Amino acid sequence: MKRVVVEKKILERNDESAKKIREILKNKGVFALNFMASPGAGKTTIIEKTIEALKDNYRISYIDGDLDTDRDASRIKKLGIDVVQINTSGACHLDADMVLKALKQVSLDCDILIIENVGNLVCPATFDVGANKNVVILSVPEGDDKVKKYPVMFNVADVVLLNKIDLLKFLDFDVEKVKKELKEINPDADFIEVSAKEGYGLDRWFEYLKNLIANSSLL
Amino acid sequence: MKRVVVEKKILERNDESAKKIREILKNKGVFALNFMASPGAGKTTIIEKTIEALKDNYRISYIDGDLDTDRDASRIKKLGIDVVQINTSGACHLDADMVLKALKQVSLDCDILIIENVGNLVCPATFDVGANKNVVILSVPEGDDKVKKYPVMFNVADVVLLNKIDLLKFLDFDVEKVKKELKEINPDADFIEVSAKEGYGLDRWFEYLKNLIANSSLL
Repeated sequence: MKRVVVEKKILERNDESAKKIREILKNKGVFALNFMASPGAGKTTIIEKTIEALKDNYRISYIDGDLDTDRDASRIKKLGIDVVQINTSGACHLDADMVLKALKQVSLDCDILIIENVGNLVCPATFDVGANKNVVILSVPEGDDKVKKYPVMFNVADVVLLNKIDLLKFLDFDVEKVKKELKEINPDADFIEVSAKEGYGLDRWFEYLKNLIANSSLL
Repeated sequence: MKRVVVEKKILERNDESAKKIREILKNKGVFALNFMASPGAGKTTIIEKTIEALKDNYRISYIDGDLDTDRDASRIKKLGIDVVQINTSGACHLDADMVLKALKQVSLDCDILIIENVGNLVCPATFDVGANKNVVILSVPEGDDKVKKYPVMFNVADVVLLNKIDLLKFLDFDVEKVKKELKEINPDADFIEVSAKEGYGLDRWFEYLKNLIANSSLL
């Protein structure tokens, strides 16, 4: 029982820091997205394509959470935007304190702050990092049973991107089942099918994102 | 800094329980495998095929760790072996205390105990569950950069199964890179390529497992 108490304390502290992040971002007029997914679901690729599509009209900054490497951050840096790397030294998620520290280094003269969380379909869901919206990516090869198996993550999603739909033709995957189970767990979550590799659905995602930002009270 | 101390205490307690598990299993002559991987890498399918191939010659029991559902356990139960479900209620990994409790319910009149951990390429690696060998599954769609990005997990692997190699022809994935990076991080880990769906490599895996068990001092 001790463990639960410890966890509660950590989460309370985290929520305080997340609140501070929200205040900072609100004052700066920055709209923040927190990308979460399993390893290899396509977070970095979708973020790359999103930055490429939007960077002429929006100023974008990027914070990357990774256990140990800066591989993802290096990929994003090539796009010419401001990048800060958080190495969690083995921790399985970003927390608000880590992001708060990163905010001191990253350029906040931006419209959009993209936070790429550690690849993990479980723990990042529990730690609010002060973003305006949570983007959860599920990819087709992971299987169509994941929404109900990882309800905590899908419960905090504002939008679910189903990625790698170019692989639907090779794999036994029921998109309708995923949509149905997502509706049961989180009826407010939006759902967009994409193939980051082949481009399918990305325009819909970009439009969706532009609408989110336009309708937010921040900008 | 407080968090690190808490974590250390949790891990010390976990190690004590893992030691107890090892003693229980040794006394019963049970060889235990801990399967770890990202969601959707193919843990349950590989376990199904392994049980099907070995159950005529070995008595097998199974403990399943899942956040919330009993979908995997139900699949394994159909194979007619003894199954115990651990629902972690949101926790991102099995720990030794959970497995210790499950040992009171699962049949230990067996040769092999298969433990299927929560789908997560990070946290389960930190919590010893008292198994004899850690089996880590990586699947091709997750990408060939995962060994260095998730070094904690690949560091504790005794054997890495590269699954879904039937998808190599559709995806840009460098098997040699994975082998090279695994050798750098964990030179003692064995590496076997399989396709659980199409059967490729599974016979090699079964023979490998039989050898492990034959050469262990337990049976």
